[in-house]
Amino acid sequence: MLDEKILSILRTSRDGYVSGEELCKLADISRAAIWKHIEKLRAEGYEIDASPHLGYRLVKAPDALISSEIRWRMKTRMLGRQIMSFKKVDSTNDVAYGLAEKGMKEGAVIISEEQAKGKGRQGRLWISPPSGGIYMSCILRPEMSPREIPKITLVAAVAVATAIRDLTGLDAVIKWPNDILINGNKICGILTEMKAEQDGIDFVIVGIGVNVNTAGRLLPKGASSIREEGRRTGLATVSRVDMARRILEKLEENYILLKTKGFKPIIEEWKNLSSMIGARIKVIQQNRTLEGQVHDIDSDGALIVRLGSGVLERISSGDVVAL
Amino acid sequence: MLDEKILSILRTSRDGYVSGEELCKLADISRAAIWKHIEKLRAEGYEIDASPHLGYRLVKAPDALISSEIRWRMKTRMLGRQIMSFKKVDSTNDVAYGLAEKGMKEGAVIISEEQAKGKGRQGRLWISPPSGGIYMSCILRPEMSPREIPKITLVAAVAVATAIRDLTGLDAVIKWPNDILINGNKICGILTEMKAEQDGIDFVIVGIGVNVNTAGRLLPKGASSIREEGRRTGLATVSRVDMARRILEKLEENYILLKTKGFKPIIEEWKNLSSMIGARIKVIQQNRTLEGQVHDIDSDGALIVRLGSGVLERISSGDVVAL
Repeated sequence: MLDEKILSILRTSRDGYVSGEELCKLADISRAAIWKHIEKLRAEGYEIDASPHLGYRLVKAPDALISSEIRWRMKTRMLGRQIMSFKKVDSTNDVAYGLAEKGMKEGAVIISEEQAKGKGRQGRLWISPPSGGIYMSCILRPEMSPREIPKITLVAAVAVATAIRDLTGLDAVIKWPNDILINGNKICGILTEMKAEQDGIDFVIVGIGVNVNTAGRLLPKGASSIREEGRRTGLATVSRVDMARRILEKLEENYILLKTKGFKPIIEEWKNLSSMIGARIKVIQQNRTLEGQVHDIDSDGALIVRLGSGVLERISSGDVVAL
Repeated sequence: MLDEKILSILRTSRDGYVSGEELCKLADISRAAIWKHIEKLRAEGYEIDASPHLGYRLVKAPDALISSEIRWRMKTRMLGRQIMSFKKVDSTNDVAYGLAEKGMKEGAVIISEEQAKGKGRQGRLWISPPSGGIYMSCILRPEMSPREIPKITLVAAVAVATAIRDLTGLDAVIKWPNDILINGNKICGILTEMKAEQDGIDFVIVGIGVNVNTAGRLLPKGASSIREEGRRTGLATVSRVDMARRILEKLEENYILLKTKGFKPIIEEWKNLSSMIGARIKVIQQNRTLEGQVHDIDSDGALIVRLGSGVLERISSGDVVAL
């Protein structure tokens, strides 16, 4: 917290330099302590100029997925109030799940620069190369029935698609239930896991993997990154910190919307951000495959598909392929 | 396994005694090894007579919830093929959940003579005094959507009610969703927990607590035991081993029925074993309370209640009180 206080003072200094004396006063600590914190911040990647006459100046902040960067001016009240950052973990979802089981509160976020065994849906891998992606998992504790979990997935999809559109202007669209595409290429996946009993959810882990600046050659077929897709429109490198912060802000906003106004406004948002209504698709489920036209999304977040026979079929799980 | 083999030989011996020589041959081990196993079995509570001239004879098996007792002539192919017995744990559901997370296979059963923090629904306690109850948790890995979890709870309720009726002749009835009552008193509770993603269940823990021979004074208000309720009809002490075995057999039977024939035959069984259809009830949910008459149970296992206004309401969670 003290690091963040010092950073905040340096960041908001109008003339660049803050004298050591002033910094001590504002942060309410000794000169020796200031020096220790400055050294720690430098080790984290902050470039801080120290001049004997002028004092300290923040030259450059790192685009690192660390709490002090993400939380800077973040407009959330619950989500991300606690952020745990890792260089590399097997899976942020697994770390978050374990912490949630031990009682970690709603809103905590686990974020990593890299994942050794990033998880996708249905036991698949989510390729998570270092220094380009955002791999984060949020602990939520909604008072909901386990049958409502698709709502949380859709809330997250709306949040990510909105955040990407806000920051890049790119046309990010949602592919049911949990992918975000740009130009038809997958740049984000969402994995929602939960611990629940029949009567209610204990906790939900919302895992979000976004390929922000990841080089295309590091990604599997069909996947891309925001930078790769933005290149054609002249988009520069996107700050992962800004993206992570914006996603958390939008996620909290939509989560609160869900809790206060219900699922309807989320569904409306979802439909605006999705290219699926009316599309012809193939759905691949464990025991069967079916084709049809997307008719609607129902009040539980399931896809309603009109089959060739005209019959409407409710789809709550499976893989969707556009035809 | 060798213990169970030796026990099996002793149990099936027609003239009581089995000579040491014969036992060695049948179990295919040395005399020294036989002696070691006999000592181990005695430590577990088996009374085994050893006569220098006649050999070994099983005098009495303990009514202990251990693998070698429960698995004796148990007719299951999957459930209980692996049983882990404890004297005391905090919660068999928590132990099973932890093991399932580490990859323990479907069918494994965790059973304990006592629980320090036995879990009921919605974070409540399940009072679990020693030497009278069965506290067990089964790991299942059904290929199902998380919204189908009520089906598993109802399968378990049918299994327990049937097992109790079979072994005691007492009129055990199911109270939706997960209690078993005799004479209106609760003698069993079922707690179904799961780890799931939107697309499917990773595993389900079916926790079953049955007050078999528990003294009434050790139980909370409204709760009773099979022995307490059977006393009026002259029922003697019930073997907990027989009860645990029968429950596992019935649970596997109904679980396979669910997987092969669907939910319909389970619902039919459930209706036969329940006194609820037509009953006037009060439902207490987190945010509201409603009264009405039970109209039906739907194809997802939810209760359909006809409210005073005539409207049918679908209830998938909450506490039910008979009016």
